[in-house]
Amino acid sequence: MRYQPIYDIAELCVLKNIKHVVLCPGSRCAPLTIAFTRHPGLDTKTFSDERSAGFVALGMAQATRSPVVLLCTSGTAAYNLAPALAEAHFSQTPLVIITADRPAEWIGQHDGQTVYQTEMFGQHAKKFFQLPQDYDHADSVWAINRMVNEALNLSVQHPCGPVHINAPFREPLYPEKGSLISFSENVRVIEEHRALPVLDEDQKVKIKDAWLQYDHVLLVAGQNPGDTINPSLVSNLQRKHFVPVVHDIISNLHAAEGTVQHADLFLGQAPDDIKETLMPDLLITFGQSLISKNLKIFLRKYQPKAHWHIQYPGPLSDTFKNVTEIFSTGPDSFLSFINSLEEKMNVSQDQRNYFQSWQHEESRTLRAMEFLVSEPEVTELHMVKTMLSALPVEANLHLANSMSVRYGNFIGLPPGRKGIHVFSNRGTSGIDGCTSTAVGHCLTSVKPNFLITGDLAFFYDRNAFWHNYPLENLRILLLNNHGGLIFDVLEGPSSLPEAKEFFITRQMLNGRKLCEEFGFEYLSLNSKSNIQNVFRDFFAFNSKTKILEIETDTSTSKSVLELLKLKIKTTYEL
Amino acid sequence: MRYQPIYDIAELCVLKNIKHVVLCPGSRCAPLTIAFTRHPGLDTKTFSDERSAGFVALGMAQATRSPVVLLCTSGTAAYNLAPALAEAHFSQTPLVIITADRPAEWIGQHDGQTVYQTEMFGQHAKKFFQLPQDYDHADSVWAINRMVNEALNLSVQHPCGPVHINAPFREPLYPEKGSLISFSENVRVIEEHRALPVLDEDQKVKIKDAWLQYDHVLLVAGQNPGDTINPSLVSNLQRKHFVPVVHDIISNLHAAEGTVQHADLFLGQAPDDIKETLMPDLLITFGQSLISKNLKIFLRKYQPKAHWHIQYPGPLSDTFKNVTEIFSTGPDSFLSFINSLEEKMNVSQDQRNYFQSWQHEESRTLRAMEFLVSEPEVTELHMVKTMLSALPVEANLHLANSMSVRYGNFIGLPPGRKGIHVFSNRGTSGIDGCTSTAVGHCLTSVKPNFLITGDLAFFYDRNAFWHNYPLENLRILLLNNHGGLIFDVLEGPSSLPEAKEFFITRQMLNGRKLCEEFGFEYLSLNSKSNIQNVFRDFFAFNSKTKILEIETDTSTSKSVLELLKLKIKTTYEL
Repeated sequence: MRYQPIYDIAELCVLKNIKHVVLCPGSRCAPLTIAFTRHPGLDTKTFSDERSAGFVALGMAQATRSPVVLLCTSGTAAYNLAPALAEAHFSQTPLVIITADRPAEWIGQHDGQTVYQTEMFGQHAKKFFQLPQDYDHADSVWAINRMVNEALNLSVQHPCGPVHINAPFREPLYPEKGSLISFSENVRVIEEHRALPVLDEDQKVKIKDAWLQYDHVLLVAGQNPGDTINPSLVSNLQRKHFVPVVHDIISNLHAAEGTVQHADLFLGQAPDDIKETLMPDLLITFGQSLISKNLKIFLRKYQPKAHWHIQYPGPLSDTFKNVTEIFSTGPDSFLSFINSLEEKMNVSQDQRNYFQSWQHEESRTLRAMEFLVSEPEVTELHMVKTMLSALPVEANLHLANSMSVRYGNFIGLPPGRKGIHVFSNRGTSGIDGCTSTAVGHCLTSVKPNFLITGDLAFFYDRNAFWHNYPLENLRILLLNNHGGLIFDVLEGPSSLPEAKEFFITRQMLNGRKLCEEFGFEYLSLNSKSNIQNVFRDFFAFNSKTKILEIETDTSTSKSVLELLKLKIKTTYEL
Repeated sequence: MRYQPIYDIAELCVLKNIKHVVLCPGSRCAPLTIAFTRHPGLDTKTFSDERSAGFVALGMAQATRSPVVLLCTSGTAAYNLAPALAEAHFSQTPLVIITADRPAEWIGQHDGQTVYQTEMFGQHAKKFFQLPQDYDHADSVWAINRMVNEALNLSVQHPCGPVHINAPFREPLYPEKGSLISFSENVRVIEEHRALPVLDEDQKVKIKDAWLQYDHVLLVAGQNPGDTINPSLVSNLQRKHFVPVVHDIISNLHAAEGTVQHADLFLGQAPDDIKETLMPDLLITFGQSLISKNLKIFLRKYQPKAHWHIQYPGPLSDTFKNVTEIFSTGPDSFLSFINSLEEKMNVSQDQRNYFQSWQHEESRTLRAMEFLVSEPEVTELHMVKTMLSALPVEANLHLANSMSVRYGNFIGLPPGRKGIHVFSNRGTSGIDGCTSTAVGHCLTSVKPNFLITGDLAFFYDRNAFWHNYPLENLRILLLNNHGGLIFDVLEGPSSLPEAKEFFITRQMLNGRKLCEEFGFEYLSLNSKSNIQNVFRDFFAFNSKTKILEIETDTSTSKSVLELLKLKIKTTYEL
């Protein structure tokens, strides 16, 4: 068979334990379509909008923690994958993108769907592979197998990420009518036995010595996948060493008790003398980006003497401008080692007080937030609170950019809820694929998936629903204020005369018609609703995708946020 | 003002006669938003989905034949412009893309919406400009003015195309509350006086000498904007030199009489002995891509002795593999010169016969197509025919990829309809922005705009309607066969077992809900409809966007196409 080396890519993927394939239909990609859809070892699903398909694949890779293959045809189809590919790059998610192409001779010859696909994703792809376009020579067949092996291995090397394989195909693209294709036996697999770096003895000695020098040690966690850190490591760090553990909702440390989840809120209101008591002399960090803007500002202003960042080898993000040491290992093994160190007897009272200072601010904030429960109203913040409190034991929580993830971070998750995993596209923080990413989870996991989204992110990515796969395990809380609330909350734009038209971007749609169009169950909340009843319907699982919408205006939503901030601020004025 | 050099970009654009600006809202781009929306000389419109916005800007640039400025914020927002930018590159449409960015120091530092924006569009941008990020030094101010001048000039140099300016901004991004911004006086304009190349005397002598050598001269026109070629030049070429003029619907040569519009149809059916009589010895071409696949195959197989391609300096597309001479001038001036040559008395009978051979095949095809009028049925092909016959005197006709533009090309336009301009995104032939491109026309022209589109292109780009601007002059004929008919028409995929799911891509939506959602008037046709009445409603202008849908299945649509081909084929068997 002319395309045998291409068909065997599907076989290689199966041998490398790939399970899920996302396909965007086209003609040029026919040899890939035929190979991947006919291979019994693969689950191939098809999506017409490539932009959405890219994010669906991203969600599948997040859900399965494995590379997902993403196939598309030539031309602008490939360019539509760029947003998801950039998110995969910065969120370190493994994707194997295979784009079909015309043979190199035909690029720019006014003949069909072609763009310049060579290295089209720039630095966002970990590596670009151009497959041979003629397979007559044995070296071509060797090269195809070798390159795909390398691409698959590379996608899961730390830092994980997307790889791009460009496959030029000559006509005829289709096998003879009625002919069967087969997969070769003994397709070569290059297995890479990855060894994760661990601290050596010299490094341990160094850490042990340095550890004694600091008595205001603070741990701050950025975005981090659920279930990767044993919550007892975090609890121990607090109990044994009195290290405050500060994190965002997307850090997925809510399984542990006693952590500080509301730093963004209180650091935005606390006076300087309080902040000075919170200043670390040793800052330890792991994970990726932080949502909490006030925490970032605080850590940039109150510079620690040392900042240890824990990450597997990869590019450096110096978010607070003060990294001094990088330990190339996983946070779990690092925390285990720290927990094995003896308590710092000589400095423990100072560290205890430091720990208490953070706890004190957290408690103050929790008290100030009680009005959200005691006086439930139909506002965005109240409804996010209601939903986060009522999530089932096992669930994925998806937070769209950009206000929804901020709401989620303001509220936080109840401690101990280890069955809840939080996801958000914070690699690039785009609104362009938040729903599609959640859809990718729904299609690869039986867990219930809850998405909290605003109207701009929701309608932007509405093609997330434009396919033929049921999404029974998807529940969406749609916070529709008919515009981009973030621009009303930011200090700068809200006071400008062009705020409404050119920043907040009023949009008129609501979710009702969309639900009718796709056969989803539509629920809505207004001030007269019985909140409990509506949420009960929303949480009931009955084989239907459900969307619960609250329609407000940006000023109401903004005023509740301001009330929350005021309540926290007031506690500092007593 | 800190951002004065950036504000002055808006002033420079006005001085360079830019009229239309497309803005995608964001925070990082605030200095650009403020400058462009506040400048009284600019019409700035805002769109939330950047992918759609890119194509809206493309449509505006097509409609106005001038560069359009396209502004967006940092991150994946910018990547969503890539499909439109690639189309602009290959269709040679001037776009000035200005992307906001974080300062270079902050890229990859886990701080907000950033991707690698430097040269992110590769070769698809004619040039990439990185603006300075600090304006303290006078050289920075000079450089910003110089670069934007160069970018604007470059966008309209032949071949026209998109340019990319990346503008990194430091916080604070917003002016003080209530403060006014102003535009500098005497902003420098670098005016480029473009001189178009014309044939010199030596070249004219050469053409004149060569002209006498050929007695089967054929003119084939690729895609070409309307109103750029005087129809009398085409008529003269036929009348005086008996040169057959063969073209596609997107060549916009329908203003002339007597041309050959149906080569794709008859070259697909004619036996070899007929094709041999049609073989040129001198092929003259201009314009960009051809839709007609059978014409391309014919010209590749029946190679002329010489192939003269007429185009302003730019990259070479050798679509038929036989270009021998390139004349760097416009087709109109080239045709004027050819028409000024004396008739070839010695070869005229041969050329006359050659001309008649093409005319004969065209007439045969027109007769075979008569059943489309005499037996009107509610099929896609019939309805395209009905619509193309009934267009008003002045109108823009937009043909979506990929079956719609093929239907349009099969049918063609009645000769002499010079008020109709035909548009189609054939630079990259993507389905991703066909509706948005038509929307760009609606927003910059009072002409009625008619779009013929299939369901995949239509729903793919449904965010074309997600904005707050009325589209009163838009009429859409939606050919909904619930899948990609092209894959059922292509020989290869239709016979494969995975055809339905993975090539044709069944999709279940129709246009009714979408019309309800956006307040459009919805009309539909079925076998019991009174076709005349429905079309009368459709063509009536009453301040409403209208969508006329016909829902069929792919097999019915395919069978009408096969009937048409059969009717043509039969004429060769009599």
